Amino acid sequence: MSLDGTYDDGNIFAKILRGEMPSARVFEDSHVYAFMDVFPQARGHTLVIPKHSTARNLLEEDPATLAPLILGVQRVTRAVRAALKPDGIVVTQFNGAPAGQTIYHLHFHIIPRWEGQALGRHGEGGMADPTELKALADQIAAQIA
Amino acid sequence: MSLDGTYDDGNIFAKILRGEMPSARVFEDSHVYAFMDVFPQARGHTLVIPKHSTARNLLEEDPATLAPLILGVQRVTRAVRAALKPDGIVVTQFNGAPAGQTIYHLHFHIIPRWEGQALGRHGEGGMADPTELKALADQIAAQIA
Repeated sequence: MSLDGTYDDGNIFAKILRGEMPSARVFEDSHVYAFMDVFPQARGHTLVIPKHSTARNLLEEDPATLAPLILGVQRVTRAVRAALKPDGIVVTQFNGAPAGQTIYHLHFHIIPRWEGQALGRHGEGGMADPTELKALADQIAAQIA
Repeated sequence: MSLDGTYDDGNIFAKILRGEMPSARVFEDSHVYAFMDVFPQARGHTLVIPKHSTARNLLEEDPATLAPLILGVQRVTRAVRAALKPDGIVVTQFNGAPAGQTIYHLHFHIIPRWEGQALGRHGEGGMADPTELKALADQIAAQIA
């Protein structure tokens, strides 16, 4: 999908927000929802999304939504670090399919990196084990102030 | 460099902010400074940094600095799109060397993507031609509202 288009509220993240799909929740406040990516590119790959948004990407987002969103991203990134002690963390946000976007609800990826471990491709390891994701989510959630 | 450490005000971005190093400026307000990456991973690769910060990465940043920073990122991302008409745009932020960070002053990358064009590696194309960067910066700046 290109950068042009309209928001489809049947997307997976919208379903997760409505409770129609399960997710391994890490954090939630009135503005943002954070949960484990089911196709992790690394152990601890977490997503942060705005809860009340029909923006497909950063370009479309209401600027008023961005401040609480980036604060949520920082908070969860700090918790990922505290919980998993990675050597580095990539924070990334894709706009449009040619940029790697696959779900068209604005989201930030938080991807832990470990020295000497190449980054996996999205989906190449298949879907993660839900029990393992839940354990990781709990470990990260325990570090959120 | 790992995630632990202290801010070194001799880093290149601090020098750019102090006017001790040249840069191809795209945008500036009281909070943020945007300029062209001299080792672009794609045509139009732009950086956005906080002007008043001694945070090496997102983990360390004062939360109060994040709102104006992400607003600047959105504004410049929109201008990059309007100016260069890419098929997609990656917005990314690296924390620590194992995540790809090379300059230890918090920064967001805005990287246009074109269908069928692989992303270059940082620095692999060598340093960009300053005249070309200046022209790109002017093209993007002209689209900032």
